Amino acid sequence: MFISFEGTEGVGKTTLIKSLADYLQQQGKDILLTREPGGTPLAEQIRELLLSPQDEAMSENCELLLIFAARAQHIAQVIQPALNAGRWVLSDRFVDASFAYQGGGRGLNVQTIELLRQQFVPVMPHITFWLDAPVELGMQRARKRGALDRFEQEKLEFFQKVRASYQNRANAEPKRFVQLDASQTPAQILEQAIAVLKQKTTLSSS
Amino acid sequence: MFISFEGTEGVGKTTLIKSLADYLQQQGKDILLTREPGGTPLAEQIRELLLSPQDEAMSENCELLLIFAARAQHIAQVIQPALNAGRWVLSDRFVDASFAYQGGGRGLNVQTIELLRQQFVPVMPHITFWLDAPVELGMQRARKRGALDRFEQEKLEFFQKVRASYQNRANAEPKRFVQLDASQTPAQILEQAIAVLKQKTTLSSS
Repeated sequence: MFISFEGTEGVGKTTLIKSLADYLQQQGKDILLTREPGGTPLAEQIRELLLSPQDEAMSENCELLLIFAARAQHIAQVIQPALNAGRWVLSDRFVDASFAYQGGGRGLNVQTIELLRQQFVPVMPHITFWLDAPVELGMQRARKRGALDRFEQEKLEFFQKVRASYQNRANAEPKRFVQLDASQTPAQILEQAIAVLKQKTTLSSS
Repeated sequence: MFISFEGTEGVGKTTLIKSLADYLQQQGKDILLTREPGGTPLAEQIRELLLSPQDEAMSENCELLLIFAARAQHIAQVIQPALNAGRWVLSDRFVDASFAYQGGGRGLNVQTIELLRQQFVPVMPHITFWLDAPVELGMQRARKRGALDRFEQEKLEFFQKVRASYQNRANAEPKRFVQLDASQTPAQILEQAIAVLKQKTTLSSS
């Protein structure tokens, strides 16, 4: 199983992933936790380039291609081998984030992003949990965490476009996307996620 | 004018570019010297990732996308503004190197590289000087320069494929590609390059 977790800043992705991984391990599943951009030492170096505020304005095309470069490495070195070995892969963000942030947020052509996906992303998540909440809420939480990265420094409007793009992705792929109300408590969100996994995977039969 | 310089390791690209830039400046041209991968502080950081030998094997797709990411930044920040300002841009390598190294050398699908070119490379060189020599000769020169980078560490066969790909590119675009025999002296090569510029550009009329 390959499960991705999507959403704007501060919606509680990390909390959900950790608690879900704990639960799945208790059920005897072999779990790999990973994240994007990143997931390998080289891809984490690319992440650093992407997230660090730079003196030089990063072109939108450069940003898009760096993210897909990190993803190609992540797939080749981590995701594909883990799936081949029968492990459950839980990834904090995956390709939908490129459609949401670079497509929605930056306004890049979605067909160009889809071309990159077709060429360089041979594996898609079976389930994508989309943690959704009003962006103001998440931005408040993100600010409390400390210094803001290059994306977190974006304005409210940027994240509203990102959220709208996630909604478009969810509408287009209702079987894969599971929308969770991120304004609930962590326990409620976890409970709903587990219920979905019991329904959509082999979890309940194990 | 946008002029790129291509060829395998140690064929004398740097020597030719510098002497040609000196000559063009004497003719009153406003010259921008640049290189790929690199050409901006951010793109040079991507170059460092690409050239440094890594503990982790870099996937071929990651390498290809990193190079196009650096190129997108190079075009947006350096090449396009310089061309818009009427400067002459001399670049040590450009997009043909991706076809030669990642297409020929690594064996990646040339159609995929062409897709990236169409999407992310809005400007092509007017003239491409291809410095060609038997790869053994260039490899000997490259080894004398010191520690080998991640590409220079490749085997003879890799560079033979790179050279063959440059030949294919030259055959396909005979008007843009100018093949120069890199086993000649630097003075001979410079003289031929200047003769080509006088024939193909506004140089002689200046």
